[in-house]
Amino acid sequence: MSTGTRIVELRKGVLKKNDEIAAGLRSRFGAYSLPVVNLVSSPGTGKTTFLERTLRQLRAAGEHPAALVGDLETDNDARRLAASGAPVKQINTHGRCHLEAEMVGQHLEGWDLSAFTYLFIENVGNLVCPSSYDLGESARVTLLSVTEGEDKPLKYPSIFNSADVAVLTKMDLAGACEFDRETARRNIEEIRPGIRIFETSSKTGAGFAPWLHYLAEVRERARAHEFPVP
Amino acid sequence: MSTGTRIVELRKGVLKKNDEIAAGLRSRFGAYSLPVVNLVSSPGTGKTTFLERTLRQLRAAGEHPAALVGDLETDNDARRLAASGAPVKQINTHGRCHLEAEMVGQHLEGWDLSAFTYLFIENVGNLVCPSSYDLGESARVTLLSVTEGEDKPLKYPSIFNSADVAVLTKMDLAGACEFDRETARRNIEEIRPGIRIFETSSKTGAGFAPWLHYLAEVRERARAHEFPVP
Repeated sequence: MSTGTRIVELRKGVLKKNDEIAAGLRSRFGAYSLPVVNLVSSPGTGKTTFLERTLRQLRAAGEHPAALVGDLETDNDARRLAASGAPVKQINTHGRCHLEAEMVGQHLEGWDLSAFTYLFIENVGNLVCPSSYDLGESARVTLLSVTEGEDKPLKYPSIFNSADVAVLTKMDLAGACEFDRETARRNIEEIRPGIRIFETSSKTGAGFAPWLHYLAEVRERARAHEFPVP
Repeated sequence: MSTGTRIVELRKGVLKKNDEIAAGLRSRFGAYSLPVVNLVSSPGTGKTTFLERTLRQLRAAGEHPAALVGDLETDNDARRLAASGAPVKQINTHGRCHLEAEMVGQHLEGWDLSAFTYLFIENVGNLVCPSSYDLGESARVTLLSVTEGEDKPLKYPSIFNSADVAVLTKMDLAGACEFDRETARRNIEEIRPGIRIFETSSKTGAGFAPWLHYLAEVRERARAHEFPVP
């Protein structure tokens, strides 16, 4: 067996092990009817700012969201998110380019999941590798900022294809970036036909009403135990 | 031996094999005194637009640059770069999150390297994985756009630490993004003390004169066979 073949087989083994742990997490979240949202995107798309506003608005509406946030190094993002008042834990991957289900499970320790009405997981900024790792989430959300270019869905298809919904961020910069909204939407839909797309600005709050409405739907599905089967 | 340990060992094997192929490429490039520049960044930093302008300006100055460009899928970038008039080949990684030395070697076939005065390699957009893969380059350039946030060097240290120089892109958007130039520079220098940083706009051409001056230095070093030893 060549080294290449062995690596592919071991990689499958890693993914299989991850899928088993993710299935366990999904059962555990299901027992609490807890909706879990996995946010994936490039570095710099604005995941943290988007999540910070989401946490604040959910809390203002009487919800109890919590968040895990992954980064190679630093706890900058956890500190930013904790300013919302929500419980937050940082996961440092120390060079690993994605979160794995095992890391999520380890960081749930000490938390009473029955106290939460949402759990968000902000993945490591990477438009490739996180697409292969199920984290037991109820919904996977792929974000794309208007500054990144309309062609990204075609060039990074797996992360858009595995998404439940897509979020365009930094819409307030659309003019300055000469962002072509129709082309971006068409490219996302080419990779994932029929997907819902939210157009948002975390700076102005534009587009957050339909996004929060979607989150309420995800929560209703979790209560009815209608998790999508991966 | 646990699966985890086996994977780490096989991974070291992959990197060792890549390093051997990269060393072979470096000798081959050295035989032609050909400077090779590896461009790495997140998706959407503007590598392709930056490289397109670089190719045009080098050609206008009488140079003969060529480029390889990596993407998971599509040949969009190769087509954009080829509009500069330079020879360009697309490398599709089909899901792989970085370029490897072997892919570079395969795509040199049919090219007469003695006809080129520069070879650029635009890596897959990824701020983590490409840092581990030597491509036989003379210089590794890490790009960061002003839209991505000043904290990225701290959160993705390996790709900044392994860079020879750093390039800030989209400086024309600095105002709209409330980009904090001093903080960004300080964060880059914290990870890679003493590194040269170019502040550029591919839209206006700002900052390209010092960048092209740097490229001329890289070329002089290649002619003097002063490749940095990885």
